[in-house]
Amino acid sequence: MSRFRVHPQLLQDCHQLGRMAACHALLHRNAVLPWFILIPETDEIDLLDLDPALRNRVMDEATAISRFVKDELQCPKVNVAAIGNLVPQLHLHVIGRHPGDACWPLPVWGHLQESDTYSEPRLEEIGSLLEGSWGLQRSA
Amino acid sequence: MSRFRVHPQLLQDCHQLGRMAACHALLHRNAVLPWFILIPETDEIDLLDLDPALRNRVMDEATAISRFVKDELQCPKVNVAAIGNLVPQLHLHVIGRHPGDACWPLPVWGHLQESDTYSEPRLEEIGSLLEGSWGLQRSA
Repeated sequence: MSRFRVHPQLLQDCHQLGRMAACHALLHRNAVLPWFILIPETDEIDLLDLDPALRNRVMDEATAISRFVKDELQCPKVNVAAIGNLVPQLHLHVIGRHPGDACWPLPVWGHLQESDTYSEPRLEEIGSLLEGSWGLQRSA
Repeated sequence: MSRFRVHPQLLQDCHQLGRMAACHALLHRNAVLPWFILIPETDEIDLLDLDPALRNRVMDEATAISRFVKDELQCPKVNVAAIGNLVPQLHLHVIGRHPGDACWPLPVWGHLQESDTYSEPRLEEIGSLLEGSWGLQRSA
């Protein structure tokens, strides 16, 4: 049994979608943009301090999410970042963007003013799509 | 001969340090924070659209820069991001951060108000250090 726990701030900010092979997959509660967060089970706080093999696996899973965002959610652009100045647990943002979106062309962090929520059917749909072809194992 | 050219906006914003194996290495002219930018020679605009082998090489070089920032420049934290909403040429930010720095805890993009410049001797020193142990081949 893993004793790893997702940071409470991330649980507050996000819906838990489930697990990928290396990462916990979350979806930011702000539905204005498709904003995914991947969390590998590690005590390292910086992506670039990970063992390269694990780092590459995390990037593979971020790539799957990015393709999902482009193919299924029709975003032409994806922003990816590991920042973690506020929440020390290592987490990787994968965010679908399109020209004219709610804070284009600025990055979302500290700039996204609008908010919206996901309906339960929409959350279920996103989880189901990610489970089907993109490597997600959903939470019970 | 490569016909690849670094985007003019990045040349305007940054000093060119030289080449690593896969990427052009640049240093943002704003010296308030150590802000490196890596540019692989590709027509892709998103990091997660790169062939995984090239993506992993880019991440290896970002890791070297991150270790340099932590070991030589004494930053405890590194932010890494590929955004590119404004400049479409794929570029990866590797930025040294420390609590209390000029825009802590916010990310730099759209939040860093202070500015400073590098002296020529300091630029020379950074290039020399990166060439010595971190894989940089300096510009002629």
